[in-house]
Amino acid sequence: MGELRKDPILGRWVIIATERSKRPGSYLVSDDCKQDQSIQCPFCYGNEKMTPPETAVVRDPQTEPNSQGWQTRVVPNKFPIMDGSQPFDKKNKGIFEFSSNFGRHEVVIETPHHCKEIDNQTLEDVQTWMRIIQDRVEQLYLDEKIKYVLVFKNKGKEAGASLMHPHHQIIATPVTPKRVREELLGSELYFNENNSCVFCDMIKDELKQNERVVEQTDNFICLCPYASRFPFEMIILPKKHSLDIFEKHIKDNLAELSALLQRSIKRLTALIGDVSYNYIFHTSPNRIKLPDHWKHIEKDFHLHIEIFPRVTKTAGFEWGTGFYSNPTSPEEAAKDLREVKYDI
Amino acid sequence: MGELRKDPILGRWVIIATERSKRPGSYLVSDDCKQDQSIQCPFCYGNEKMTPPETAVVRDPQTEPNSQGWQTRVVPNKFPIMDGSQPFDKKNKGIFEFSSNFGRHEVVIETPHHCKEIDNQTLEDVQTWMRIIQDRVEQLYLDEKIKYVLVFKNKGKEAGASLMHPHHQIIATPVTPKRVREELLGSELYFNENNSCVFCDMIKDELKQNERVVEQTDNFICLCPYASRFPFEMIILPKKHSLDIFEKHIKDNLAELSALLQRSIKRLTALIGDVSYNYIFHTSPNRIKLPDHWKHIEKDFHLHIEIFPRVTKTAGFEWGTGFYSNPTSPEEAAKDLREVKYDI
Repeated sequence: MGELRKDPILGRWVIIATERSKRPGSYLVSDDCKQDQSIQCPFCYGNEKMTPPETAVVRDPQTEPNSQGWQTRVVPNKFPIMDGSQPFDKKNKGIFEFSSNFGRHEVVIETPHHCKEIDNQTLEDVQTWMRIIQDRVEQLYLDEKIKYVLVFKNKGKEAGASLMHPHHQIIATPVTPKRVREELLGSELYFNENNSCVFCDMIKDELKQNERVVEQTDNFICLCPYASRFPFEMIILPKKHSLDIFEKHIKDNLAELSALLQRSIKRLTALIGDVSYNYIFHTSPNRIKLPDHWKHIEKDFHLHIEIFPRVTKTAGFEWGTGFYSNPTSPEEAAKDLREVKYDI
Repeated sequence: MGELRKDPILGRWVIIATERSKRPGSYLVSDDCKQDQSIQCPFCYGNEKMTPPETAVVRDPQTEPNSQGWQTRVVPNKFPIMDGSQPFDKKNKGIFEFSSNFGRHEVVIETPHHCKEIDNQTLEDVQTWMRIIQDRVEQLYLDEKIKYVLVFKNKGKEAGASLMHPHHQIIATPVTPKRVREELLGSELYFNENNSCVFCDMIKDELKQNERVVEQTDNFICLCPYASRFPFEMIILPKKHSLDIFEKHIKDNLAELSALLQRSIKRLTALIGDVSYNYIFHTSPNRIKLPDHWKHIEKDFHLHIEIFPRVTKTAGFEWGTGFYSNPTSPEEAAKDLREVKYDI
């Protein structure tokens, strides 16, 4: 018999459909990075001129900008979905509202190696791009017209990646996105009722119930959320109440966070193969010149990384209701992820 | 340069990313129905015993239930995602809430023909299953514990279909789903400000602007929504303010609605091939014993069918923000859909 579960932050219902229960072996896997090795990859060594000029870079100081010799490289997206230079300004056309698409869209090329995904990189590689991501978010938030910066990774075709070379994307938006606003409203509601952060309380309960924890370190925890939408969905949170990806506590413990993120992906691929996945960083909205009625987010909101393998399709039911149906319970998923053997 | 557009009902932002502009020919197509012809299909003639017994059927009166001789057949889903017999009742486990998954999950097998999708059926075929869908929703709403009934179609693998034989699904839920509640709240807000139905006003503005209308008939309209999330997304609405899929105005004009739905799908497949798509019927929530504070939905809410081809992947950006990025403007999409030649 299945069960309905409510996400404690978003109030979103998920159906844990155990009647359709699926084990790791029954999910699709794919081997993506080799699919486009024949095309000229704009993210590989020697093709630096195929991208717009570097915004940020870690490279051998002996080398020229936009040439070989880099380790991690940030460039504007050549086909940006947000890049308007005119500030956000709503206009009307009859009942309809529109605006210029003010924002930024950057690509973080993690490594020069076309097929060296996060689970095959060194810990130092991971730390390098994590540090550059922190820097870019911090820099973008200096512009008060930027209300939110989303960092995300699309790995594999099923996850929407159009280039298989390992990279992250950063999109800066002129409004706080709906999905983030829902988290802010849900966590405000919880705070008003309980006088505590819903994320902090969730961590406490997860440690107490000890059924969905994949791994914890001194400062971070990785778990399968109680109301997981997808099989083998994970969330990584700092145990201490933290808001920004670039705040001191996170910077001080970046090696630990990088290693945990890498191990979580290693567990996933050890379990179900070279799978497509997305992950997103939900950092705080821009707190420069935060209006008074948003000040509460400093108490309510809590940095987290959501990781979700793309092994199921969202269909009419999900799109029509906002419910999700998940054929693998998070308890089973956490057990499998916890116990799987992966390369150190 | 792209543009940000706001959905007038949901307040959801969409990026019309014309920098990435894509023409119909550049989308993926697939030919799905033949993929599983080798397996024994539980929806084909002669395999009636492979499904649970019929809930409703249109069949030759000379034939036995659950045998050959039917034209359209409704059966409970063999692997239901909602089917709890215990009423919805929230319980707590620490911070987390859960409930039994009270509800119903049925399958409407449109036709005995494994590969005869809606665009290849006769208009009479379409009317037959449309009528049976109306009946089932009306019947399910007699149970006041059912708060919402979603009717949807998953066509093709990309749209989440696991069986290629033409069918719809009906899921009855014990709570009003989040996505429907968002429409109710958005349309209430608009009504309170404008003293009119946002859907009715949208139809008026679409007819006036005349850029996104695919087709109109006496009583219905098909258009590409102003803030379309997906390329070639369409919405079909009754022009007259209507709430339920089974109300008299819709029943009286069912042939017209069936023909318009069929033509819309014909336009889509003529344009981009045998594509995967979903569509969903957003009918009113159950209005039996509607609490007083929900009475306003009779003025605000407006029946509609959302059709979206699955030619793009939702990636980290969409999941992390709730924004959508659409590389084909609805104006181009409507023009292409309007002008395409399709078989009558």
